[in-house]
Amino acid sequence: MSGEFSLIDKYFAHKQQQRKDVVLAQGDDCAIVAPPADSHIAISTDTLVSGTHFLSDADPAWIAHKALASNISDLAAMGASPAWVSMGISLPEVNEPWLERFCSAFFSLADYYGIQLIGGDTTKGPLTITLTVQGTIPHGKALTRGGANSGDWIYVTGFLGDAKAGLDVILENNISADKAFNHELEKRHFKSTPRVLAGIALRDIASAAIDISDGLISDLGHILKRSNVGARIDVDLLPISSELMQFVNSLDIAKQYALTSGEEYELCFTVPEANRGQLETALSNTPFTCIGQITGTGNLDLHSNDQPLDWQLGGYDHFKVSQ
Amino acid sequence: MSGEFSLIDKYFAHKQQQRKDVVLAQGDDCAIVAPPADSHIAISTDTLVSGTHFLSDADPAWIAHKALASNISDLAAMGASPAWVSMGISLPEVNEPWLERFCSAFFSLADYYGIQLIGGDTTKGPLTITLTVQGTIPHGKALTRGGANSGDWIYVTGFLGDAKAGLDVILENNISADKAFNHELEKRHFKSTPRVLAGIALRDIASAAIDISDGLISDLGHILKRSNVGARIDVDLLPISSELMQFVNSLDIAKQYALTSGEEYELCFTVPEANRGQLETALSNTPFTCIGQITGTGNLDLHSNDQPLDWQLGGYDHFKVSQ
Repeated sequence: MSGEFSLIDKYFAHKQQQRKDVVLAQGDDCAIVAPPADSHIAISTDTLVSGTHFLSDADPAWIAHKALASNISDLAAMGASPAWVSMGISLPEVNEPWLERFCSAFFSLADYYGIQLIGGDTTKGPLTITLTVQGTIPHGKALTRGGANSGDWIYVTGFLGDAKAGLDVILENNISADKAFNHELEKRHFKSTPRVLAGIALRDIASAAIDISDGLISDLGHILKRSNVGARIDVDLLPISSELMQFVNSLDIAKQYALTSGEEYELCFTVPEANRGQLETALSNTPFTCIGQITGTGNLDLHSNDQPLDWQLGGYDHFKVSQ
Repeated sequence: MSGEFSLIDKYFAHKQQQRKDVVLAQGDDCAIVAPPADSHIAISTDTLVSGTHFLSDADPAWIAHKALASNISDLAAMGASPAWVSMGISLPEVNEPWLERFCSAFFSLADYYGIQLIGGDTTKGPLTITLTVQGTIPHGKALTRGGANSGDWIYVTGFLGDAKAGLDVILENNISADKAFNHELEKRHFKSTPRVLAGIALRDIASAAIDISDGLISDLGHILKRSNVGARIDVDLLPISSELMQFVNSLDIAKQYALTSGEEYELCFTVPEANRGQLETALSNTPFTCIGQITGTGNLDLHSNDQPLDWQLGGYDHFKVSQ
């Protein structure tokens, strides 16, 4: 088998149309990009490790999708337009069919979002993928976690909880006899849709935003902490898919899945009362649901039928889980 | 032990003075930076894997130094000024003394070069460190591999070969009885000095540049390929340290170490005849040596005492080595 350089040439280099703002892509010590005038750059890094974030026999196309989609979702949460991505990938061996499937899915998603792979590093080691994505955003328009105010309405995009049901299928917990149904849930775990257009549309509307990677409770908690506010969530409003209901067969469990499911890559965002009208037109192509309101309490309170709930739920944390 | 978020807070977040061009560092979905007007951005990614790039019991301070220095060296090779770095790090466990030594060395080097850690990801997994560094460079001033012309002179900074001697010590090949001497060579393997000021000074002087990460022959080969030229190297001119001579105890072997030693992180660059005078003043604080000249042949020829040499030497390639 060929060496590292030809591996990069064969699978990773120059597989996409060159963006106009990419001066130099792979093939030198650095890539060179030309950021647009009057723009800031949003930068996010995520690492996926075999055995921690996916099983070693997971479909490489799904791994690629998840790695890139989860990173693009971070750009979406800031309201940034995806631009460039760098990849550090460690591979235990050169497995050409694996690489072909991985790269095909990676570039297909990258092309869809107009994000160009500009460089990276290919090394020998346990399967690990670290992506650093970059996006552009007009000065002062970034959506942060710190802008929520008491009275703002809390929204989420899409449905919540399906990714956790998909994880159950992958880990063979409580799976159904219906293989096609299992496969659909598994796919939802890996094949999320980053809400890029929604993020861009929310630049002038939302007061704060985050993507749901660690679970709604945990991620909304970040907004509350940064914004120094509280929240009241009406769990009866949580958007739950019919597939999730079919899978867990209990509305309460479905709600708990929706509150704690990580790796959803939906957006959670807050909108001041005055901007709610604009929201309806701005997000006309993205499903979204109001699930509660920001409060001045400092607590995250769950309600159902106007009664407080005392569910003890947490988000996902790699080190906490394992120790 | 605390979870991922407190791990990031405790060791990685906000340990440095904020650069003026960093709008938002750790703590949101993305970092936000404000690139200077009229600048391009140089971006490089490198991955270090335990067992491939260093032994699992290597000093964490040296691992941190090597990881960051090797990346900054890529910026230096383009003539870029270091600005921002993102880190994806996988750790098999939370080892606080290890993290303290790692972070202390990392931030010490980062502060020295004025590069700010703006974000990243901390995950559980086999020890792997992927850094993406970014630097700024005035429009059109990047030093690439593609600009060398026949007649240009070939230079290298510093001494070559010491990193390979250090690797011999680490792998316990042919080591000396002198422990302090061994330690000094080992240190040279890990503690290279990226030639940032030299790279910046060469912006208007050099026609092409690369950093020596895979060995002089391999890396100069990249310049030749991109520039569509050849080179004649006079091996008698190679800069060899007295320590390397003492270690290998043979001038020919020392030269071969200098030609093939990877992970040197010195610069190899080419300078047109007309710019040689400027070079002397521009690099007044960096040792550099002329080792040969670019030719029109397309080959990389080695000479000694005006006679051709037929040494068969290669560079380093992870996958080639292991298969």
